[in-house]
Amino acid sequence: MSEKEKYTKLSALGEFGLIEHLTQGITHKNSSTLKGVGDDAAVLDYREKKMLVSTDMLIQGIHFDLSYTPLKHLGYKAVAVNVSDICAMNGIPKQITVSLALSNHFSVEGVEELYAGIYAACEQYGVDLVGGDTTSSVSGMCISVTVIGEAEGPEITCRNTARPNQLICVTGDLGAAYMGLQLLEREKSVFAGRSDAVQPDFSGYEYILERQLKPAARLDVVRLLREKKIVPASMIDISDGLASELMHICRQSGVGCNIYEEKIPIDYQTYKMAEELNMNATVCALSGGEDYELLFTAPLELFEELSVLEHISVIGHTCKASEGCYMTTRDGNTFELKAQGWANFKAPETAEK
Amino acid sequence: MSEKEKYTKLSALGEFGLIEHLTQGITHKNSSTLKGVGDDAAVLDYREKKMLVSTDMLIQGIHFDLSYTPLKHLGYKAVAVNVSDICAMNGIPKQITVSLALSNHFSVEGVEELYAGIYAACEQYGVDLVGGDTTSSVSGMCISVTVIGEAEGPEITCRNTARPNQLICVTGDLGAAYMGLQLLEREKSVFAGRSDAVQPDFSGYEYILERQLKPAARLDVVRLLREKKIVPASMIDISDGLASELMHICRQSGVGCNIYEEKIPIDYQTYKMAEELNMNATVCALSGGEDYELLFTAPLELFEELSVLEHISVIGHTCKASEGCYMTTRDGNTFELKAQGWANFKAPETAEK
Repeated sequence: MSEKEKYTKLSALGEFGLIEHLTQGITHKNSSTLKGVGDDAAVLDYREKKMLVSTDMLIQGIHFDLSYTPLKHLGYKAVAVNVSDICAMNGIPKQITVSLALSNHFSVEGVEELYAGIYAACEQYGVDLVGGDTTSSVSGMCISVTVIGEAEGPEITCRNTARPNQLICVTGDLGAAYMGLQLLEREKSVFAGRSDAVQPDFSGYEYILERQLKPAARLDVVRLLREKKIVPASMIDISDGLASELMHICRQSGVGCNIYEEKIPIDYQTYKMAEELNMNATVCALSGGEDYELLFTAPLELFEELSVLEHISVIGHTCKASEGCYMTTRDGNTFELKAQGWANFKAPETAEK
Repeated sequence: MSEKEKYTKLSALGEFGLIEHLTQGITHKNSSTLKGVGDDAAVLDYREKKMLVSTDMLIQGIHFDLSYTPLKHLGYKAVAVNVSDICAMNGIPKQITVSLALSNHFSVEGVEELYAGIYAACEQYGVDLVGGDTTSSVSGMCISVTVIGEAEGPEITCRNTARPNQLICVTGDLGAAYMGLQLLEREKSVFAGRSDAVQPDFSGYEYILERQLKPAARLDVVRLLREKKIVPASMIDISDGLASELMHICRQSGVGCNIYEEKIPIDYQTYKMAEELNMNATVCALSGGEDYELLFTAPLELFEELSVLEHISVIGHTCKASEGCYMTTRDGNTFELKAQGWANFKAPETAEK
């Protein structure tokens, strides 16, 4: 079958045809979804629950590189990073809207792949796709997702409610997504322009690649904490690196912190890749970004209960703001934490991602 | 003052600095806004009310041309077109989120202008800005807005609830925004490449220019109908031209329609510009798009009450689907209505906007 026969141009369906094609199989999972795609607006009913709203935009050439990002993974990721924001408020995601700008060169099959990823994430996180907008773009792709979630008032966790002498906890492990990105970028530059290039061998690095290409929101941890009746004192998700997010909590709550390098959870593959690239794995965890793990503080008396929970690591404690923000290294030195985060407005070629 | 001194680069503030700079003066107007910008998600409380959610994306080079679109107008328009979707459901808009992708070449002052327009629209429509995302773009600008509104259940108006033998009504006048676009495009091509060009003289065409550059959502009509205790049987906003939107209602409701050319409200400036460009003003009203007026159906017995209301024109009636969708022209002929709408996935150079 030739390329020409295999792919369908977007213009063959038109905007309304495309939307109908992509959304025809939708069924709603949540009772709060009264009406979804197909009118001027979706209709939702949250009754006595509070509603959480967050939005995130992914731009081609800034947040993703289509030369190595499978479209299905991209669709999944666009939903997961938004769901992660609802998790960071200790809420349960319920609905999303997806707006998409696409070049005319895109095929219907390409958009179907992207939506297959979006629907897979909706399934995974129990979310209904209730609306969106599809338009053409003169250049790259742009995906804008808005997520709506629910929570009872008292369980909502903010960034500005940490207090001195609380435990600092993180979920999962850190730095892996950044190492995955470095690996993909390295292979891309190695293979650039080589027509004899074969698919690179990523064996032994599957985990860090998945962390970059298909990150997961920690809805499992939100559910686990509910089950254990633990409400964090403050919480944020780690999208820009541990240091940057911890600084957000400290600054907004007016507290200081002390974390311990040896307690920061880092996967074996992250260490291995960092070594290969002559980088420091702890620095990757502190500043790498895109981990989408949760960072939270909790009362000291929960130490025993928290430290035995799967997927949760206690990495330090908060203190008075006047004591500053420090990390104690493996060799017993301390150094001041600085927010590195993600330099969004550097020129793209120097930006970290 | 040189250009260099006058403008501040985005990189001087960074992402978080920019967001803080742009959102520091926010105060909330609505009791349903519990927490706005500054955390992982906004927190809203709609209690017994239903919630309406809609989203729209504007892309540089597709939906707007920065060579003649003032940034302040663009910001205003991005909010207004979203508010219009909530109006089309007979709801009251309450909150918006704004995601923005910007080239690094953009200045802080430019973004301030854009936000001045966004805030002006928020003020106009009583809406709270509660969140968003700001990122860089490798090429053009992209603005994605999500709007959330409220309504009691029974007053919500959908597209699929028109019945035969109802009045078809539109608000305001049609075709003006399209004529404004034609005027701007003509002046742009006249002045292209001329260094001696002076500002074009738009006098006599202020109205159609404003309709294109700074469209208004008909929240005033939604409020008027509430005051009169009139609930439309079905409603949609006219973003893609009267014909296309009427087809949406007819198709989704399973009805036909008959409208009268002489009843379609068209402004004098629209007629004048259409004549100058050798176009048919009725065709502009049917297919022009971007009017953001409301199109609704209502029971026949409301004819007298509706026809005396300001800003509302009765233009025809619905019938059985088997009778088809027709317009009766001024000279008494009938022709079948076709949805032209906005050809979003044509190649940009041939797309209508």
